[in-house]
Amino acid sequence: VSGSITIALDAMGGDAAPKMVIKGANIARKRYPNARFLFFGPEDRLRPLLAKKAKLSAVSEIRDAPDIVTGEIKPSIALRQGRQSSMRRALDSVQAQEAHSMVSAGNTGAFMAMAKFVFKTMQGIDRPAICSFFPTLRGESVMLDLGANVQCDARNLVQFAIMGEVFARSVLGIQHPTIGVLNVGSEALKGNDAVQEAHGTLSGLDLPGHFHGFIEGDDIAKGTVDVVVTDGFTGNVALKTAEGTSRLVSGYLRQCFQQSVLARFGYVLARPALQKLRFRLDPRRYNGAMFLGLNGVAVKSHGGTDPMGFATAIGVAIDTVEQGLLTRIREDFEGLHGQSVLHAVSPTGAAANG
Amino acid sequence: VSGSITIALDAMGGDAAPKMVIKGANIARKRYPNARFLFFGPEDRLRPLLAKKAKLSAVSEIRDAPDIVTGEIKPSIALRQGRQSSMRRALDSVQAQEAHSMVSAGNTGAFMAMAKFVFKTMQGIDRPAICSFFPTLRGESVMLDLGANVQCDARNLVQFAIMGEVFARSVLGIQHPTIGVLNVGSEALKGNDAVQEAHGTLSGLDLPGHFHGFIEGDDIAKGTVDVVVTDGFTGNVALKTAEGTSRLVSGYLRQCFQQSVLARFGYVLARPALQKLRFRLDPRRYNGAMFLGLNGVAVKSHGGTDPMGFATAIGVAIDTVEQGLLTRIREDFEGLHGQSVLHAVSPTGAAANG
Repeated sequence: VSGSITIALDAMGGDAAPKMVIKGANIARKRYPNARFLFFGPEDRLRPLLAKKAKLSAVSEIRDAPDIVTGEIKPSIALRQGRQSSMRRALDSVQAQEAHSMVSAGNTGAFMAMAKFVFKTMQGIDRPAICSFFPTLRGESVMLDLGANVQCDARNLVQFAIMGEVFARSVLGIQHPTIGVLNVGSEALKGNDAVQEAHGTLSGLDLPGHFHGFIEGDDIAKGTVDVVVTDGFTGNVALKTAEGTSRLVSGYLRQCFQQSVLARFGYVLARPALQKLRFRLDPRRYNGAMFLGLNGVAVKSHGGTDPMGFATAIGVAIDTVEQGLLTRIREDFEGLHGQSVLHAVSPTGAAANG
Repeated sequence: VSGSITIALDAMGGDAAPKMVIKGANIARKRYPNARFLFFGPEDRLRPLLAKKAKLSAVSEIRDAPDIVTGEIKPSIALRQGRQSSMRRALDSVQAQEAHSMVSAGNTGAFMAMAKFVFKTMQGIDRPAICSFFPTLRGESVMLDLGANVQCDARNLVQFAIMGEVFARSVLGIQHPTIGVLNVGSEALKGNDAVQEAHGTLSGLDLPGHFHGFIEGDDIAKGTVDVVVTDGFTGNVALKTAEGTSRLVSGYLRQCFQQSVLARFGYVLARPALQKLRFRLDPRRYNGAMFLGLNGVAVKSHGGTDPMGFATAIGVAIDTVEQGLLTRIREDFEGLHGQSVLHAVSPTGAAANG
């Protein structure tokens, strides 16, 4: 993609929408001078907000979408009744090639259902996955699935591994990403059939990256591998557990610094260094989960994010387009089609998911 | 239990065994003046080590066990060939009522298999679970299963909830523990059938504790509930993810304090407070996982623990005996037998696990 990149934004998704979305786009505008924005939402609400930002207005358009997908609505209902919603119309604009990609901070389940319906699942992939990156001791890694599929078979996991590997290469810029399948720790407890079978298949595939084998929960933060592959149930729990633990330790730390006058003074001296810590762990820097495996780029922002975090999610959408992620995934799957081992995986499971 | 409590110790389990085990028992001896110890292992190796500690020797006996269960051995092989092992003979001594409970830092899979074989599963319980406690923002919570069962049905989860609730009451001393079932976060992604069905059953049971409902990964560290119920795959990954993240943040923090002279000086001033942080997160304070659901008390220590951590695990074994945990679990399950809803759970699943 050369020239400008157009990003469709669901202006009504997220706890602090639509203001948060417009402010976020304004931050992203400064970072990505070649970006243009389409804001989807009720025109009468968006018009006065956008009018306050002249530079953003200059690279933006408002597209009227009267309805809003609420946080409580069921995906199936949203799919049937939400055709005029800001979320759906933002997706439609990508499908109609008016925009290159789109971002929403709205209801995850409804968003995934709509994205699947509008973009369709990529050929060769049984199920899309939610993929995000996160900080490790070594830098950054990606993990998938983070909640799109609560039950996965070996074939799903193998496909996640291949998609995650392409994501790590193209978006994080890691030349030969290492891949690990999340499993339970103990020597003797060998995990379920799905991870065992996925391990067997991935060991036999000729991937651009390197298959490391099984990893355990503590390997996530260590950064033992660049791509952590797991089912959506475990991945969602692991990601949220890591976020919660990070907040717990930071909370303890704050309490510690308030325990004595000396400690408070120590905090003042160490503050610049501690601010780097805060920056490093700032969840806003890791906002923006990709729906991988669809014929279109949809990025999910945290619902509770602020403009800074939303700008990061917009950045993920832009990087994905600039790096040609979809084409790369398609090429990788085509390249693997010659490798019979991929076809041999779990025919029963494949039929059940087909 | 009045008078002395006898704890059988697998002297050969753990990376630094047997020295670590003997040193750990010596620390526990000071904390629990009524404790007596039976050390199981090759007598010629243990005798000289124990001889150096006169006070410990006075409350200890060595029981010769020539064989060692290695870290790599399969549970099935350990079960068949390990009859003369220190791990097995320590379990046998509890079964023979020579000891009240036992602790091992050896191979988890072999340990679980042997403990099930020697103690047998408690009546009314389909599968035992591994249960441990951990620090939260509110204090301490317990989580199970941590890896005994990689696949669980609703009936297993309900039984884990009841056992965990008794553990929280008797060992942590929480009068009316709250119980939560771990699930994925998103509104619309409602988790698998097992957690849904377990939720239904637990909502209908009349428990001494309170059933909170579903929780997400970040609720673990928050301490939203006292008892976190999950399958062994997810539980193992979540626990290790939390440990890894805690180490990641602590590692970042160390790096921060070394970034400038001012930061280092700040560290010196804040050191007493930061040592409290370290103490609060010290994994040795949370060492010792119970095998719940068996007719005997077996406590698993981390294999890599030091004497201080091993002493904590011994403490868990002693507390469990003193609080009469097994009797309490038995009584709770008997009390629930009148509640037809427990019988109604997933008859197919029960048959498959029976």
